[in-house]
Amino acid sequence: METEEKRVWENDSELFEMMEDQLYAAVISDALDAAGFREQVLRHTIRPLLPETVVVGRAMPVLCLDVYEIPDEPYQQEIAAVDSLKQNDVIICSTNGSTRICFWGELLSTAAQARGARGAVIDGFIRDIRKIVAMRFPIFTTGLSPVDSNGRGEVVAYNVPIECGGVTVNPGDIVFGDADGVVIIPQSVEQQVIEAALEKVQGENQTRDALREGATLREIYDKYGIL
Amino acid sequence: METEEKRVWENDSELFEMMEDQLYAAVISDALDAAGFREQVLRHTIRPLLPETVVVGRAMPVLCLDVYEIPDEPYQQEIAAVDSLKQNDVIICSTNGSTRICFWGELLSTAAQARGARGAVIDGFIRDIRKIVAMRFPIFTTGLSPVDSNGRGEVVAYNVPIECGGVTVNPGDIVFGDADGVVIIPQSVEQQVIEAALEKVQGENQTRDALREGATLREIYDKYGIL
Amino acid sequence: METEEKRVWENDSELFEMMEDQLYAAVISDALDAAGFREQVLRHTIRPLLPETVVVGRAMPVLCLDVYEIPDEPYQQEIAAVDSLKQNDVIICSTNGSTRICFWGELLSTAAQARGARGAVIDGFIRDIRKIVAMRFPIFTTGLSPVDSNGRGEVVAYNVPIECGGVTVNPGDIVFGDADGVVIIPQSVEQQVIEAALEKVQGENQTRDALREGATLREIYDKYGIL
Amino acid sequence: METEEKRVWENDSELFEMMEDQLYAAVISDALDAAGFREQVLRHTIRPLLPETVVVGRAMPVLCLDVYEIPDEPYQQEIAAVDSLKQNDVIICSTNGSTRICFWGELLSTAAQARGARGAVIDGFIRDIRKIVAMRFPIFTTGLSPVDSNGRGEVVAYNVPIECGGVTVNPGDIVFGDADGVVIIPQSVEQQVIEAALEKVQGENQTRDALREGATLREIYDKYGIL
Amino acid sequence: METEEKRVWENDSELFEMMEDQLYAAVISDALDAAGFREQVLRHTIRPLLPETVVVGRAMPVLCLDVYEIPDEPYQQEIAAVDSLKQNDVIICSTNGSTRICFWGELLSTAAQARGARGAVIDGFIRDIRKIVAMRFPIFTTGLSPVDSNGRGEVVAYNVPIECGGVTVNPGDIVFGDADGVVIIPQSVEQQVIEAALEKVQGENQTRDALREGATLREIYDKYGIL
Amino acid sequence: METEEKRVWENDSELFEMMEDQLYAAVISDALDAAGFREQVLRHTIRPLLPETVVVGRAMPVLCLDVYEIPDEPYQQEIAAVDSLKQNDVIICSTNGSTRICFWGELLSTAAQARGARGAVIDGFIRDIRKIVAMRFPIFTTGLSPVDSNGRGEVVAYNVPIECGGVTVNPGDIVFGDADGVVIIPQSVEQQVIEAALEKVQGENQTRDALREGATLREIYDKYGIL
Repeated sequence: METEEKRVWENDSELFEMMEDQLYAAVISDALDAAGFREQVLRHTIRPLLPETVVVGRAMPVLCLDVYEIPDEPYQQEIAAVDSLKQNDVIICSTNGSTRICFWGELLSTAAQARGARGAVIDGFIRDIRKIVAMRFPIFTTGLSPVDSNGRGEVVAYNVPIECGGVTVNPGDIVFGDADGVVIIPQSVEQQVIEAALEKVQGENQTRDALREGATLREIYDKYGIL
Repeated sequence: METEEKRVWENDSELFEMMEDQLYAAVISDALDAAGFREQVLRHTIRPLLPETVVVGRAMPVLCLDVYEIPDEPYQQEIAAVDSLKQNDVIICSTNGSTRICFWGELLSTAAQARGARGAVIDGFIRDIRKIVAMRFPIFTTGLSPVDSNGRGEVVAYNVPIECGGVTVNPGDIVFGDADGVVIIPQSVEQQVIEAALEKVQGENQTRDALREGATLREIYDKYGIL
Repeated sequence: METEEKRVWENDSELFEMMEDQLYAAVISDALDAAGFREQVLRHTIRPLLPETVVVGRAMPVLCLDVYEIPDEPYQQEIAAVDSLKQNDVIICSTNGSTRICFWGELLSTAAQARGARGAVIDGFIRDIRKIVAMRFPIFTTGLSPVDSNGRGEVVAYNVPIECGGVTVNPGDIVFGDADGVVIIPQSVEQQVIEAALEKVQGENQTRDALREGATLREIYDKYGIL
Repeated sequence: METEEKRVWENDSELFEMMEDQLYAAVISDALDAAGFREQVLRHTIRPLLPETVVVGRAMPVLCLDVYEIPDEPYQQEIAAVDSLKQNDVIICSTNGSTRICFWGELLSTAAQARGARGAVIDGFIRDIRKIVAMRFPIFTTGLSPVDSNGRGEVVAYNVPIECGGVTVNPGDIVFGDADGVVIIPQSVEQQVIEAALEKVQGENQTRDALREGATLREIYDKYGIL
Repeated sequence: METEEKRVWENDSELFEMMEDQLYAAVISDALDAAGFREQVLRHTIRPLLPETVVVGRAMPVLCLDVYEIPDEPYQQEIAAVDSLKQNDVIICSTNGSTRICFWGELLSTAAQARGARGAVIDGFIRDIRKIVAMRFPIFTTGLSPVDSNGRGEVVAYNVPIECGGVTVNPGDIVFGDADGVVIIPQSVEQQVIEAALEKVQGENQTRDALREGATLREIYDKYGIL
Repeated sequence: METEEKRVWENDSELFEMMEDQLYAAVISDALDAAGFREQVLRHTIRPLLPETVVVGRAMPVLCLDVYEIPDEPYQQEIAAVDSLKQNDVIICSTNGSTRICFWGELLSTAAQARGARGAVIDGFIRDIRKIVAMRFPIFTTGLSPVDSNGRGEVVAYNVPIECGGVTVNPGDIVFGDADGVVIIPQSVEQQVIEAALEKVQGENQTRDALREGATLREIYDKYGIL
């Protein structure tokens, strides 16, 4: 699966634009499978606001907790987490499965976008979705709710390992999401996985053409080894 | 949070048009929170047919029950409930969580719209959705099914207090729904809550502008106390 | 409900085009109810990719199973099942409720479409949805996931009776799906059910007009017996 | 499967004592399967209070509904239903899946037992279980809760067909429950099913002995056709 | 419902022994209903280890969170919470619905019992249940698991208001649990509720006797107003 | 954690008797955690029939599938799987989450026990539980149902890797279950894990005694590093 010359990217911005342009979640998942990383896709309940949404960037994980008291100083850690976002980050947030509140909305999206973040993936609810869609800030979420988090939920840690949608996410991992779902590429294998994914895209283009011309799946699979 | 002069509305029609135009579910939920009414948002499973749908009106609650026998006189109470609808009503219906049938469809929507009802919120399933979308009759629902209610479900009471999506709804409460979800404003606090929501809209406009210009959330929250 | 002259269709292609044009899931479900077939609608979790999608054709059922080992010869039965598809078939697939994988994607859709299949109904997940939407191949599904089936799921039988979305489906039954859901017409009663559905469409057109002009549901139901 | 002489029972009391003594739910389910009645076992969530509990009798079905208002005259239909119980009845109750309340308790059990009822099967919650166990009144239930039904639930019909645990139950059907679960014998086939079950008990005694002595399942199944 | 002389209890120990002896969850729930506190019963999934278990004491609430990193100093807050227990406390713990770990076991039970705590109510899992049963330390729980909490869950706060099993619990509220479930008596109404419950126990004794002697429920309810 | 002399066991029978006698699921889970195997405990829904049940043995995994047709030759693979059982095996079976049928009962238990199998762990339902309890054959299961598998479920493979209760199980792994749950010890680390578990048992005995004498958890944890 190796090409002679290693593809190289100057920096994350260049890499992520290439990925947005040429790759998709399914082919990345296949490349991770081939590399032995078979549990990298977030639970199917985490969906984009719009089917055409694509997100790609470095994970900045956030851990939230349901609470039942209005604190004296609300939003402390939540504010710190968003203010810490850097260029090319994707905020990725676990709410421990909360269905009571939303941890994200328009003002946080505005702040994140102003800092160069590329999107948000929330294993939990969000609000203000018409405004967020209008801003073109990519968001993946398990659902929507107009309820504010004050006295209901708190950020307890950020930039730490979390589990989101059943998958372990470490700070700096690559997050890639599109209409099919969200996949996490561990930082240690990103070069290998992205190259393998780019190659598989080529193979699929060939099989697609052959199938349209009437080849059976049996013939295709025997010839290309791709399904 | 009080303005000097009380805003006044001539009548419900004027009020509901203003609300459709200027308010949204999230800011109403925040105003209810501030007034101490913290359990007023229906479960997130109740969704609009289209993301741009907005519904606002007076609740006309309906209580449905799964049954297992085809009655001699079907649809008795269901017909009576819909025929009782008045101008500016929103029919709001609990099916006790049924996943077997739908209690609402195109003909009921046509009848309701002809009586001046402003929409329907169903904690249960509906059908004929392409025709209902074409009619522009706002509907919120937990899902879709083509199955008729005859011999499967019955309206057992209407214009009584019910629980819908986990929230108590009394006849005459204001129902407001948009892409983020559905919120119930108890009749006793509607003036106070609507005024507070209108004020919060102003505050959010200021913070949004400051965030776009690069202010941190910390600066914004310290200055405006809004997130 | 009988008309004097039986309607006839030259062949399945003609029949299915007529059905796509004139019928919808709700009216077919009502006709099945009237014929005593009251459990023919698939669970509401099986949804079209787009609300305007319609599918109609002969069921070609497929039974899938979660597995936990990468086989020596992957995709064997899956390839055979798709290569066996005939003109006017609808592939209808039960995954035993799997949430781990997807059994369908773009290449399988391409192969199925090339063989004349009219669509796919999957009680399970699929991937490559942007490409499938672009192909205009009708698909109903319970969800989306980018994860491949190799080493996770296998086709264990096809062209056999299955249960899909809670309904027994036999090879050759008619599958009809639209925005409201998917309904199965057993082959033995298809002529009778389709004729009854066509007649009910006429009745609904009359009641809709009367309701728009302000008739009460009570008047309508007493006059037409339709709701 | 027919014996030469039909077994006869003088009356229901004699029949039910014989069934308690000689039959069990699994063998009755097998006999119903053989007779083509393959959907007669209530959902597995309906469990006896104690594993040694056995219930058998004629179904007296009751249909309950969640409500949200304290009525002027509470418990009206609930009282009438229990006061209508006759010798050998089993009260069998659907609560439409309610998890808010319990519809049964010690005083209702005392009243039912005083009228000769043989037990209760509740697709919903009950309370006072220590006292009910002490009374030796057989009860099957989905769970326990100390919450009273007043203002939360109402009986809306009794002695009508219902669905309980996913199975249609008609008044007069035989209800049989033990540690494995609850099975419904439709009145029209009860003679045939009970006789077939009694015969299968004999067959199982033979195979059990042979297996203990070391026969393989293959030998047993080839010889007796029973598993 | 008032008696002439107020019942008095010297101290909590005396009160709780009387309650264990004379009251039960159902009658306390009825007394809370009558006082207008209609949402005081924990979700039915929280069950005693043994049906004969009774727990009563002052709530010491604990809030737990799923985590995904092994900390440098594990168990910090968990140790502090248990070491803070006082005579007559009941530890009552919300895990935010975690199904990954258990927050309680034999050694914590031993430590709690040594400090005079009267039991534990865990909205989550526990382990070491055979040893805990042998110790006769009352525990209510949603399930069992042998998995330790280190690197999987952490106590983030204690002696604060929490929500447990859907009910708000404040430090110092009375927790009462038996075979029917667990009920919370807010501290502000405890005198009134306990007295009303004691009186209702008297009434039930009378109705039980009458029902055993053959009175109808109708007669009983008309005479005593109790069901 | 190493002792100087390696403990040795003559054979599996000796090993498993020792484990039954001296170990429990919680301490084995802790030893697996320490060895870096942190996902070895089956889902909490898999419970023993009786709380005092203990099972330990070598995994013989079986994979089952829901089907919807009565086959010409029923039970083929099921019979072969049970007839293949050897001394000290534990049959461990995944039904892909089926709630329709039971794959295990008294006759299969009798056959398995006659071949020397030490128990069964079923991620699915069983029947005949009173007879199985009387046989003292250890069984863990997710629930009970009297429904036979013929025409509803089939064994499709055995002695292959499966996933049971969320955990990968390979043939020959050690299965250990008690009242707290079921844990899988991979064959490659069994010596190391069992020795570490035996040592931890010693440590817990010391801390238990100190806690009973009034030591705080803080003191204990600082001294022994065990909780």
